[in-house]
Amino acid sequence: MTAGGRPGVFRKVTSLANPLVKDIRALHLKKYRDETGLFLAEGRKLVRDALDGGWPVHTLVFQAEQANDPAVGQLAAEVKAAGGTVLEVSEAVLGKIARRDNPQTVIGVFRQSFAPSERIGAGGLWVALDRVRDPGNLGTIVRTADAAGVAGVALVGQCCDPFALETVRATMGSIFHVPLARASEEALVAHASRSGHRLIGTHLSATEDYRGADYSPPAILVMGNEQQGLSDSLARACDLLVRIPMRGKADSLNLAVSTGLMIYEALRATL
Amino acid sequence: MTAGGRPGVFRKVTSLANPLVKDIRALHLKKYRDETGLFLAEGRKLVRDALDGGWPVHTLVFQAEQANDPAVGQLAAEVKAAGGTVLEVSEAVLGKIARRDNPQTVIGVFRQSFAPSERIGAGGLWVALDRVRDPGNLGTIVRTADAAGVAGVALVGQCCDPFALETVRATMGSIFHVPLARASEEALVAHASRSGHRLIGTHLSATEDYRGADYSPPAILVMGNEQQGLSDSLARACDLLVRIPMRGKADSLNLAVSTGLMIYEALRATL
Repeated sequence: MTAGGRPGVFRKVTSLANPLVKDIRALHLKKYRDETGLFLAEGRKLVRDALDGGWPVHTLVFQAEQANDPAVGQLAAEVKAAGGTVLEVSEAVLGKIARRDNPQTVIGVFRQSFAPSERIGAGGLWVALDRVRDPGNLGTIVRTADAAGVAGVALVGQCCDPFALETVRATMGSIFHVPLARASEEALVAHASRSGHRLIGTHLSATEDYRGADYSPPAILVMGNEQQGLSDSLARACDLLVRIPMRGKADSLNLAVSTGLMIYEALRATL
Repeated sequence: MTAGGRPGVFRKVTSLANPLVKDIRALHLKKYRDETGLFLAEGRKLVRDALDGGWPVHTLVFQAEQANDPAVGQLAAEVKAAGGTVLEVSEAVLGKIARRDNPQTVIGVFRQSFAPSERIGAGGLWVALDRVRDPGNLGTIVRTADAAGVAGVALVGQCCDPFALETVRATMGSIFHVPLARASEEALVAHASRSGHRLIGTHLSATEDYRGADYSPPAILVMGNEQQGLSDSLARACDLLVRIPMRGKADSLNLAVSTGLMIYEALRATL
């Protein structure tokens, strides 16, 4: 699957056995996303966000019944001009690609993009997620980061795939606005030390309340894994550990909620 | 399916066709939860939370391999003493009940419980959710409410089922700690008016920043539906509308995140 620099092609596909359909459908699996460096974005809004954000487009798939819709025509023209493939497909083919009934009528295939790890911390507050596991949490955090004007999200260690369909969906398009970078724990800590960014982590056993803390830049928020929180070594590497107060019987918050609280607190003076 | 006031019974079940297994498995469907008033809680922690919270137990299911585990034996003894049925089942039966591979080794069946709508607003800050649709959001909100010491969560209008398995799972046990009540929009507004509670809603077009607002009791936070926000009529009925600032390209926050921000802001002086 490649897209050249020249104007793309337009095809009508009605066969469920078409190899293009199989290739696109395979992108539901991480293995094929990793192999091809591509991913799926469902729906007009997300495809619009991706094109507006200049993301390299590989293929646009749309349902034949939408052929006369001006907005879809515009998307198709842009994708073709960018060298992508435009596929007009039957509802059955679209359902097969989307792997569900009543799919969105437009699906885009885009090339994955990560910012270099050296950019972590640049341009404002970044959020680093230590081994985040839940695709919905990751997507929601990227959406929150976008809404609050966070400069980027770093994925530390073995995280879930930000380009999984469920994650992309949960970002509501914010995956096309917020730079994502990857780093090992060691690389993050070394980079922060070199670049002079303080690491501010959230920890259940910290004594400093998250509302009294100093978030002045340059700083990076560090949030721990859903089950285990921050790794011991990463917690030790943090310049500051804070806690979000709790007084009920629940002993922890959902990661997307606690990250939202931390982001809005860290940016409280500027939002 | 009934549970009497006398000591319960103990049975071993290995047949996938056993009618008890079918009855319990049916509780994945809202129709059967509504008909029976029962619901499922997976895992030792949730069953422990439910029993500690005095929730009426109907059945405890556990995997035969756990029969000698003291914690499971304790759960079984409590369920039997409370008049519930205890089922020791094979791994295959448990997987069938849980509708997934590698299920939790303990599943409890409990009776649903809602607080009367007259209790909305009593005992501290309540959060009212206008037509919440997403089970994960609802569960996460109940978990946040518990963590922050919110007095209860009101479900306004047509909401998703708080006793769906996905919701119960997302609460991480908090569904057994936080009172839930139901009310129509009209009933909520009339009740708040009668009881002297101010309704404080979140609205994208509000002008007052959520951080400067007066949340002094008695007050009820009102959060709108994921897609549409607050209904126009409910927004008009609010005594105060506030907005959470956003400066990125995302035009809204995930409902569980915005509710978390509102709860922690409203309780900021007391947490």
